Amino acid sequence: MAKFLTNREENYAQWYNDLVIKADLAENSAVRGCMVIKPYGYAIWENIQAELNKMFKATGHVNAYFPLFIPKSFFSREAAHVEGFAKECAVVTHYRLKNDENGKGIVVDPTAKLEEELIIRPTSETIIWNSYKNWIQSYRDLPILINQWANVVRWEMRTRLFLRTSEFLWQEGHTAHATREEAVEETEKMVNVYADFAENYMALPVIKGYKSENERFAGAIDTYTIEALMQDGKALQAGTSHFLGQNFAKAFDVQFTDKTGKLEYVWATSWGLSTRMVGALIMAHSDNLGLVLPPRLAPLQSVIIPIYKTSEQLEKISEKANQIKAGLENAGISCKYDDKENNKPGWKFAHYELKGVPVRLAIGPRDLENGTVEIARRDTLEKETIPVQNVTTHVQGLLEEIQVNIYNKALKFRSENTFNVDKWSDFLEILDNQGGFIMAHWDGTAETEEKIKNETKATIRCIPFDSQEEEGACIYSGKPSKRRVLFARSY
Amino acid sequence: MAKFLTNREENYAQWYNDLVIKADLAENSAVRGCMVIKPYGYAIWENIQAELNKMFKATGHVNAYFPLFIPKSFFSREAAHVEGFAKECAVVTHYRLKNDENGKGIVVDPTAKLEEELIIRPTSETIIWNSYKNWIQSYRDLPILINQWANVVRWEMRTRLFLRTSEFLWQEGHTAHATREEAVEETEKMVNVYADFAENYMALPVIKGYKSENERFAGAIDTYTIEALMQDGKALQAGTSHFLGQNFAKAFDVQFTDKTGKLEYVWATSWGLSTRMVGALIMAHSDNLGLVLPPRLAPLQSVIIPIYKTSEQLEKISEKANQIKAGLENAGISCKYDDKENNKPGWKFAHYELKGVPVRLAIGPRDLENGTVEIARRDTLEKETIPVQNVTTHVQGLLEEIQVNIYNKALKFRSENTFNVDKWSDFLEILDNQGGFIMAHWDGTAETEEKIKNETKATIRCIPFDSQEEEGACIYSGKPSKRRVLFARSY
Repeated sequence: MAKFLTNREENYAQWYNDLVIKADLAENSAVRGCMVIKPYGYAIWENIQAELNKMFKATGHVNAYFPLFIPKSFFSREAAHVEGFAKECAVVTHYRLKNDENGKGIVVDPTAKLEEELIIRPTSETIIWNSYKNWIQSYRDLPILINQWANVVRWEMRTRLFLRTSEFLWQEGHTAHATREEAVEETEKMVNVYADFAENYMALPVIKGYKSENERFAGAIDTYTIEALMQDGKALQAGTSHFLGQNFAKAFDVQFTDKTGKLEYVWATSWGLSTRMVGALIMAHSDNLGLVLPPRLAPLQSVIIPIYKTSEQLEKISEKANQIKAGLENAGISCKYDDKENNKPGWKFAHYELKGVPVRLAIGPRDLENGTVEIARRDTLEKETIPVQNVTTHVQGLLEEIQVNIYNKALKFRSENTFNVDKWSDFLEILDNQGGFIMAHWDGTAETEEKIKNETKATIRCIPFDSQEEEGACIYSGKPSKRRVLFARSY
Repeated sequence: MAKFLTNREENYAQWYNDLVIKADLAENSAVRGCMVIKPYGYAIWENIQAELNKMFKATGHVNAYFPLFIPKSFFSREAAHVEGFAKECAVVTHYRLKNDENGKGIVVDPTAKLEEELIIRPTSETIIWNSYKNWIQSYRDLPILINQWANVVRWEMRTRLFLRTSEFLWQEGHTAHATREEAVEETEKMVNVYADFAENYMALPVIKGYKSENERFAGAIDTYTIEALMQDGKALQAGTSHFLGQNFAKAFDVQFTDKTGKLEYVWATSWGLSTRMVGALIMAHSDNLGLVLPPRLAPLQSVIIPIYKTSEQLEKISEKANQIKAGLENAGISCKYDDKENNKPGWKFAHYELKGVPVRLAIGPRDLENGTVEIARRDTLEKETIPVQNVTTHVQGLLEEIQVNIYNKALKFRSENTFNVDKWSDFLEILDNQGGFIMAHWDGTAETEEKIKNETKATIRCIPFDSQEEEGACIYSGKPSKRRVLFARSY
């Protein structure tokens, strides 16, 4: 059997890249830093979208769409935001091409220069708050609970498929509230939605917490995050929810009349989750044979493969296989019967392992005789032979079991790779030798955080919500600290 | 009751614009030519997407995503395509901003100039065929049946909400085939999918046909279209499907080995439908009270309004209303119970008429006594009082009836406004006085078509698939013609 992938233990980065390419999830495009999301990768994103959409709607949000372009001057209005976002971005300066006078193809028409340059949105707070200004006059117009599914562009120098690309797809929620309390509550609600989604659909255990000032969203008062641990011991920020205070309302002059008739600035939140999550899904669960996908997000949940020598055998097996397929589909389980004659069963087995299909069924002549079917699960690679009449309930149960097992495995990995560290030498050693999450004391200053980052490439991933008060000394400066924070190297 | 809209008969264009704004569907943004699609308008688009997605998947297509940016040189490769598309478009020339040295906000960093300019996709044939080149080697790799949901930009000078905006949302299918026959079949299949969607979901009768050479997609061998008639007598092109021959395969050198081992260029199609359809939906059915939405695409299918004087009455009515709502929702009918105390029933009636909610239920104290509910349908404004125990089946039946009635009304309007015309003076008179579809003979030349367009602003909308052979003389040149074609002024 062909070996598709670089060994994960030898070269994790190459393993990841091989896997994305070989499993047909995505590829680099002709445009630097931009990827093509291929149908199989996009199907995972569609499943992520569908589930998140349900969760957003269940929490009272509606979708809308705002322009791709943001006038350059909008960025300058919020001081912190411009520092964070208006730098590495795609700038539209002209609106017309023309035939070159020397016959050298087409050139930019210099007479079609925009008066004000347009920025391709790296995030949409500015263009959205410029609209909200006209939508909000009174407390009766609040809250506004809007989400947008969109493409955004951040001009990245070093890119990696799904994890960091110049253009990526995401959803961005932008809400407006009458009170600080309500906005803070919304910020918390949405980080909880992200955590629920990560744990229950992605099978990805996450740590919820606050970002330190250095790591906050540009323009936010507070950023909440969910942080996950990848199999190479690096952290991945999987979703963030920002309490924006009145910063954008002030920048775009959005005021409302409250119940007492007083004019107040509106309170804001924003929150986003992107195609990066597909990268997280791959890196958290997959192995040297290929993808391991949680059943709830797998584009294909089961596959049936016939094992036969003669066309007579194939015919009988196909009849049975199509019955099984119909039974599974009736129970809401997606299923493909792969009877393509060009490929041998061994090739098919390896192919669907690479693709991460959670459950594989195989039927041969002896199964027909015995009224059985062989079932293999992708997560543990275990096989068993069961009576064919039980197949639907069995696969149903197995899919649930796989979903739970993948989660538990990731949770166990995280537990085994989370360390309470009190000495700087241990901190360095763990980072260099095994990676993982490090819970350590920190003196609370941006300077110390910056020094640790420069010396070790580790950053504070978050101050966990559930971090206990505990007297201690900063791992780096030795100054007093009241709680541990989560350090790691990260994607 | 407040009058929301300009009278449709007085000023159709203003009526349309008022309606889009007042029904909260969309608005102009701070960026010239780009709209903000507001939640209610976006909900219609989401319903369109959901139904089309089902139809695309049922016909074997999968979704994927290709980059927003297209290198300038890609456009030059297909000669006709560059003429049609590489002109009015948004051009990215730089990838960084910086703080102005004189403290005047942020400016484009002149050192961050792209070597090759990037064009925001106006359509994605070029970037997609550049990818397909690497995906296709053998006939076994074919067909490729991919659809993409995306935003595209065409720099328009005169824009109108939904109908013509610089940025718009659409889907674009791009398929690759081993034979001409298969590609032609796909082109036909997709124009039929569009026609089915328009007629069965949008309640919009359409005429399917071929575009004349002048009106074809830039780079296509053949363009099939569906054309609908709006209430002001103008045509609207509602979806197009293109047979691209081997043009893009040749431009991007995409060859495959066929079953006999011979190297051949791949055959292509593309097909698209955009947010313009929301405009068509509005213009085809709505009236002076507001939107009239087909039940199958309405974001909200029914609304219940309580009529009461005392809070005791409201309490009892609410109990009954919530039972009715639950019953409707169980039957898959979306329903809102609007018990907001700020607004009077009359205001609510007008509000939901404006919003085009197909069925309105009202319950007052007398209804409670009699065990009845008042039901009003948006399309005919008829009311009736029915026993409350029948409400779910009644509303179900009514929604189907409304769907059919809206379609029939539009079909009747089209029949009454389609004219077989044989004299040039009649042609001019009809165009100027009433508009509509004109079936007339044409000599088949681009010159005549161009002259008719320049003199009357009418274009050939299509050569209908079902147009009968008939000897005649061209309406303009008097030269012989074998069939009538469809002329109209159009959006």
